[in-house]
Amino acid sequence: MFISLVEKPSSMDAYKILETVRDKKPLVHHITNWVTISDCAQITRSAGALPVMAHAKEEVTEMVKLASSLVLNIGTLTNDLVDSMILAGGVANVNEIPVIIDAVGAGATNFRTESMFKILNEVKVSVLKGNAGEIAALTGVESVVKGVESISVEASNEEIAKKAYEKFGIVVVITGKEDIVYGKSGGYIVKNGCSVMGEVVGTGCMATSILGCFCAVSNDLVLACAAGLSCYEIAAEKAEVKCSGPMDFKIKLFDELSKIKGEDLKKLKVEKI
Amino acid sequence: MFISLVEKPSSMDAYKILETVRDKKPLVHHITNWVTISDCAQITRSAGALPVMAHAKEEVTEMVKLASSLVLNIGTLTNDLVDSMILAGGVANVNEIPVIIDAVGAGATNFRTESMFKILNEVKVSVLKGNAGEIAALTGVESVVKGVESISVEASNEEIAKKAYEKFGIVVVITGKEDIVYGKSGGYIVKNGCSVMGEVVGTGCMATSILGCFCAVSNDLVLACAAGLSCYEIAAEKAEVKCSGPMDFKIKLFDELSKIKGEDLKKLKVEKI
Amino acid sequence: MFISLVEKPSSMDAYKILETVRDKKPLVHHITNWVTISDCAQITRSAGALPVMAHAKEEVTEMVKLASSLVLNIGTLTNDLVDSMILAGGVANVNEIPVIIDAVGAGATNFRTESMFKILNEVKVSVLKGNAGEIAALTGVESVVKGVESISVEASNEEIAKKAYEKFGIVVVITGKEDIVYGKSGGYIVKNGCSVMGEVVGTGCMATSILGCFCAVSNDLVLACAAGLSCYEIAAEKAEVKCSGPMDFKIKLFDELSKIKGEDLKKLKVEKI
Repeated sequence: MFISLVEKPSSMDAYKILETVRDKKPLVHHITNWVTISDCAQITRSAGALPVMAHAKEEVTEMVKLASSLVLNIGTLTNDLVDSMILAGGVANVNEIPVIIDAVGAGATNFRTESMFKILNEVKVSVLKGNAGEIAALTGVESVVKGVESISVEASNEEIAKKAYEKFGIVVVITGKEDIVYGKSGGYIVKNGCSVMGEVVGTGCMATSILGCFCAVSNDLVLACAAGLSCYEIAAEKAEVKCSGPMDFKIKLFDELSKIKGEDLKKLKVEKI
Repeated sequence: MFISLVEKPSSMDAYKILETVRDKKPLVHHITNWVTISDCAQITRSAGALPVMAHAKEEVTEMVKLASSLVLNIGTLTNDLVDSMILAGGVANVNEIPVIIDAVGAGATNFRTESMFKILNEVKVSVLKGNAGEIAALTGVESVVKGVESISVEASNEEIAKKAYEKFGIVVVITGKEDIVYGKSGGYIVKNGCSVMGEVVGTGCMATSILGCFCAVSNDLVLACAAGLSCYEIAAEKAEVKCSGPMDFKIKLFDELSKIKGEDLKKLKVEKI
Repeated sequence: MFISLVEKPSSMDAYKILETVRDKKPLVHHITNWVTISDCAQITRSAGALPVMAHAKEEVTEMVKLASSLVLNIGTLTNDLVDSMILAGGVANVNEIPVIIDAVGAGATNFRTESMFKILNEVKVSVLKGNAGEIAALTGVESVVKGVESISVEASNEEIAKKAYEKFGIVVVITGKEDIVYGKSGGYIVKNGCSVMGEVVGTGCMATSILGCFCAVSNDLVLACAAGLSCYEIAAEKAEVKCSGPMDFKIKLFDELSKIKGEDLKKLKVEKI
């Protein structure tokens, strides 16, 4: 358990949580989409945790009991999956396992937006994550979401994160060029990462799996989310300089994450907000 | 909008459409299979467009309204997916968005063949795409389809394409060693590509996503299909000479497509038929 | 058809079966999970066979009639998939096509364990495959399965394989650091492979697809399983020495398998038990 007593997470804080993931190998239960399900499983493994993907109503309540965190992702949502998410979320709540949800495509269709509200209403979610447009749509800020892309938003990411926190009262993570992590005692801006992440399918969903890995071993979810994103995005920076194109970058992103050392964390660019 | 006035598409025609894809970043809505769903999303992104994969009946009609084309692929078909395809296709028709369908495995099972007829009957499909065996099966030409592979066909690809056009009255694309694109005012043979494409899972489905990207920004669907296939297959030729094996080829195929320049299109091998 | 008359499969036996796969290109019908479905299709192709993934109740009985083996994998099981597996398995039995099942996550939830018993009860399965924890759970040996990982087992792999054979009377394959293949006339230990296989999602499921390819062309299923695993794991050994990380290893694993030559099989480390 790591409680952030300092204003700004140091590279040591972030690395300690990564080391705990690698040491404890927490089971991260995903109920996710069919596009990036393989990517999410692999990035969880590359971070040092154990992924399990299970979505049948018949088993999610049993599976989540074995897990240290639950990752929900609405990327290819159906009503059946909403039911499974609520069932698994309920058991996660009883067992005090953190629940992280990725609002993929919220705002693009009413079905996704309404399903998000339904899940947020019935499950005590720990971390709400999305891009600016998705979180804006859930918060009532004017925005345009085109499929799963945030096209335009009428507020800064920091403003949206704060408003979303006010509305939902849970940790809010907005990813983008800079990421915002915001919770009860304030938050962080994570400035690591690189533009090629936007050219590859799955980097957003994988970021959420990383949140699942880091929240699985830490009680300070705001710090855990900031630490997880910075480790993931420092791996991305290392992959970017070695890659010959976006898909080559993706392969190297997995491998750089699995190899990250304490000294790599010196590249941490995190600010307190 | 590009109208083909010349007998043969020039490298400039093809590159102009690719540039339009990159510039407009059209949203390409897929209702597809679970095997290649990630590949289809990525190749759409690599072409410069934005993919969205959404199949729930609760949201496909909303999602397709945001899109510039609709790609249907029956690779792991169920009755639920047929229903979603027909719902989305109907809205695409009302909104005059082109609908491209990949007849994966048609002819292998009655379920696939009959579902194709059902969709073609209820939706005004713009482009029908498949390998020779699949299109032959739908057209009434003797053929053998083993799983998703075309094993033998009792006619040339050009003959099958023409017969399929006569039967369905829509643009027909047959992919193989040489691709045929055929429509109202004739068609093209695309002779680009390389044999390693056949050793990698997903290259056929990805070709269909490319058709979705190019048809999203052009009114001349025959030209758009020929242009799309040639860009994709020129990228494949470039990947082939650099790769160390089929899966390495696949990674490089994505990356070569994202990097294609106007001068690469000089390798275009397209003939008017 | 290859009948093992020698005590120990020689590199020649194994290579002969691989050559038969490449020559006959058997269709391997999979009803599998959504995490590794693409990996399973590709490894089947890389081995020289033809994959088809089809799970709808409306078509599995038709599709399996075209196939030379049926691979079942419960990685993301639902009741609908159990029904499809039983339907397809029944037709496979009537047509004397070998049925290979991967017990992914058996022991982790009652749903998976009970579904395995249901399938084993209603279908004449040819090969039961899993890690030590999964097979132990089905056999009544004390074990802990965390998600899809075998954490601890109260017996040696060889003991579990023998007990499972006694219980089910079918070929049993346990994969791990060393693999056990056990059937009516004894079995083999396969000592090929490398530790990086455990850092990559999908290597276990892909091993099962390999069993599907090799059993599709051989009547001696024990020999076919040992031969398939050793070819696959020799490819892994070759990939390991060339790779720069786990995901780079995975890409190279596919490509090394597709390039394996007779002389590579000299690395075979298989012992009779």
